[in-house]
Parts: sequence; C-alpha cells; structure tokens
Amino acid sequence: MSTGPDETTLPGHLGPGTRARVRRLAERGLYDEATVFGILDEGFVCHLGAVGAEGVVVVPTIYGRAGRTLYLHGAPGNHALRSAIACGQACVTVTLVDGLVLARSAFHHSVNYRSVMAFGPVSEVGGTEEKRQALAVLVDHLLPGRGADARPPSEEELRATRVVRFDIEEASAKVRTGGPNEEPADLALGHIWAGQLPLRLAAGPPVVDTTGAVLAAVPGYVSDYGRAGGPPC
Amino acid sequence: MSTGPDETTLPGHLGPGTRARVRRLAERGLYDEATVFGILDEGFVCHLGAVGAEGVVVVPTIYGRAGRTLYLHGAPGNHALRSAIACGQACVTVTLVDGLVLARSAFHHSVNYRSVMAFGPVSEVGGTEEKRQALAVLVDHLLPGRGADARPPSEEELRATRVVRFDIEEASAKVRTGGPNEEPADLALGHIWAGQLPLRLAAGPPVVDTTGAVLAAVPGYVSDYGRAGGPPC
Repeated sequence: MSTGPDETTLPGHLGPGTRARVRRLAERGLYDEATVFGILDEGFVCHLGAVGAEGVVVVPTIYGRAGRTLYLHGAPGNHALRSAIACGQACVTVTLVDGLVLARSAFHHSVNYRSVMAFGPVSEVGGTEEKRQALAVLVDHLLPGRGADARPPSEEELRATRVVRFDIEEASAKVRTGGPNEEPADLALGHIWAGQLPLRLAAGPPVVDTTGAVLAAVPGYVSDYGRAGGPPC
Repeated sequence: MSTGPDETTLPGHLGPGTRARVRRLAERGLYDEATVFGILDEGFVCHLGAVGAEGVVVVPTIYGRAGRTLYLHGAPGNHALRSAIACGQACVTVTLVDGLVLARSAFHHSVNYRSVMAFGPVSEVGGTEEKRQALAVLVDHLLPGRGADARPPSEEELRATRVVRFDIEEASAKVRTGGPNEEPADLALGHIWAGQLPLRLAAGPPVVDTTGAVLAAVPGYVSDYGRAGGPPC
C-alpha cells in the first residue's frame, strides 16, 4: 500500500517476475508462501483488476484459496468476470488494515497494513466437479466450518453460477507494522500526541433470520467468528 | 462487489457513462453524489487500478476527498502512481464490508457491503500550494481533526512527496444490505442457522509512542475514533 513517502514495508514475492517485484525498499523482502498465503487466508474480499474494452476496471469480490489458486464467482452475466476471462490475465490485490499510525509530523503519518498483490491467468471453470469444489472452498473461506452445514448447490444453482480460477504466477506481500517514524527534532513537540490506533474487522452480535419454520442454535463458527491469523503484533 | 450469483445490489452512478454503468440489477440505481461521497468519506483505503507496460496493476493506497477529486500520494519513485500518471486514466474502487450473510443454501451466501467504483483522469499535482492542501485533506481524511495538531510539512518534505489527483468523471455505488435470500423450500431446513454476522472496522486502545520527551494527552479524535457514516442499518 502507498501510505506516504516514508512508508516502511516488508515486501515479498512468490516466484520471480517483473510484475510483482516491489520496487520500493525491496531489500526488506519476505519471499515466502507462508506470508502471502497467511494474508490471503485472513482476507476474504479481493480487488480484481482487469482490462476490458473500456480500460481498466477494479472490482471487489469474495474469493477462496486452494493452493496457488484463488476461486472467484458471480452470475453468468457478471461483466467484470467476463472481462477478466476475455483479457486472460488479471491482478488481484488483498489488503488488511491493522491500524493508523500518527506521527508528530503530517509527513510521517501512515497506516499499518498487510497486502498481497498477485498476477496470473484467469480462466472459466467449466467442469461441474471443479465448480462444486470451488464453491465449497468459497463458502469455507468466508466462514470456516460453514460448508458442512449449508445445503450444497443443486445442478440448477451450479449452472446459474459462473466460477473463475485465478492461478497465482507471481505475488508480492507488503507489510507495515509498528509505531511512527519521527524526525529527531519532532520528538520535542510534547503537545502533539503520537502513536498507533489499532484497527480490526470486528464481528457484532449475530442477527438471526426469523423466516424459517424452526430456528437452529447459533453455531460456534458464527458466535466465535474470527479470521485466521490476525495482525502480527 | 460480486458476492455470488444472487447478489442484490443498489448501484448508482455519478454522471452518465459507459464505464461506471452497473450492468447487473441496474434498475436499483442510487444515482446521487450523497451515496457515493458517503462511502468515499467513510473509507480511507482505495484500490487504484492502472495499466502499465506490464499490464494491469491494482494498488491499495490511502486517499482524501475534496469535492469530486481524490488525492493520493506516495514517494516520488512510487511505481504505481507513475504508471497511473503515464496511463492518464485510472479506476479507483473503495469497498466497505458490513457483514456476512448466511443463507440455508450455500448458493445464497453473500456479503453486506458498500462499494464505489470511480473512473477518471489521473494527473500529478505540481504546485506547492495545491500539494500542501492535498496533504492536509489526506491527513484529515485519515483522522478528522488531526490536521490542526500535526506539524505541517516542510518545503523539503513537500518535495519528497508525490501527490496525484484523481478527478471523478463517472462513479457507481453498489450496496447490499439485509438478511439472506432463501429458496422457499429451504425455510424448512430447521437445523441450519441462517442470518447475518455484522462486521465493522473497530478501533482498539491507542498505543502511545513513548519516544518523545513529553507525552501529550490522547486527543478525542483518537480516543473516540469512528469513521463518518457507518453502515445503513
């Protein structure tokens, strides 16, 4: 993420390549799948960039990961997915925001975050079995454990869903953690508060759908919801 | 956001145009600046998509809004910003996640969210005065009220910052709210819990930076931090 001119980042990439190579502060690379996959597994909304007839489009969409493949889905008429398939190549970015960083100077304000930028080919999943597996991955990525409970898709529902696979050819992770950088002279500015304000995606109390004939108990994966991983403290 | 084949969305666009036009369920449009600007003002991380020599790149970056202009910034050597300026046109997407939607069927699982997709030209801000104003907008967008406290940028810091403006020519908002859609037959599946799990970006206790000579009291804009707006309940 670009959080300003003084950002301190820990980039990494999955396999060598020119697209995912982090140019700024590249010496801080974490070139391992564990970092990249950890960020991908904690997030569940990605931003898919593809080039269509009218230029670049960036679409938010949910995803699930199986190895080096991300599965995305949508309605058969979904314009962004069609554009990405037609284009053949896409960039998928996932960003987790961990906090605001307040320096004494405006210049050194920043954001703590973890992001992954991945590049690779996009293709339609046509086979019914891979489609079924991809949708199971998607549901369990959104809410681990849910797949065992939810009614599986019918043949008709499978036909009414477009599933695409994005195969990660290259990826880079960028991570910023910690407190503000400061100019030494600014440390004397005792009237300006400086520090971090941690942020996280927090779950509120579940809201039951009351339209059913019988209402089930709230499952643990809902009442104890949390994304895998969490910010590196 | 594409959250599956059955998504129910409230799209809108800012000015007519072919790029921002929402194709799916377009009859539900909210074509007003208030909706688009409300989402842009609550968010502070956007995903900037631009086409460079090696294809499309989607970069997360913070922003501030002034009217129909979004200001972005980075180091002078920032590759994504340079690509966007060279390309001339970009797509900027902001996504706020409001919750998970659990239907009895895997098919009808979804996400409550609010997103804006905007299109327009990107250009470098060269003038010192606009640069200064843009950075003030950025700091106060990140944390309303902070600009009055933080030490303003020096001439040297201004030179060390690349600022770009993204002028919104077209924009569309998409919003999903509410509980799950269900197939009527699924309502009898009393063993499957269904409902919503609200999610929001929550602040934890501030972490003071203790490197200063004198430590200021925590300001209200930190201790009572919250993004403008909030999910439409």
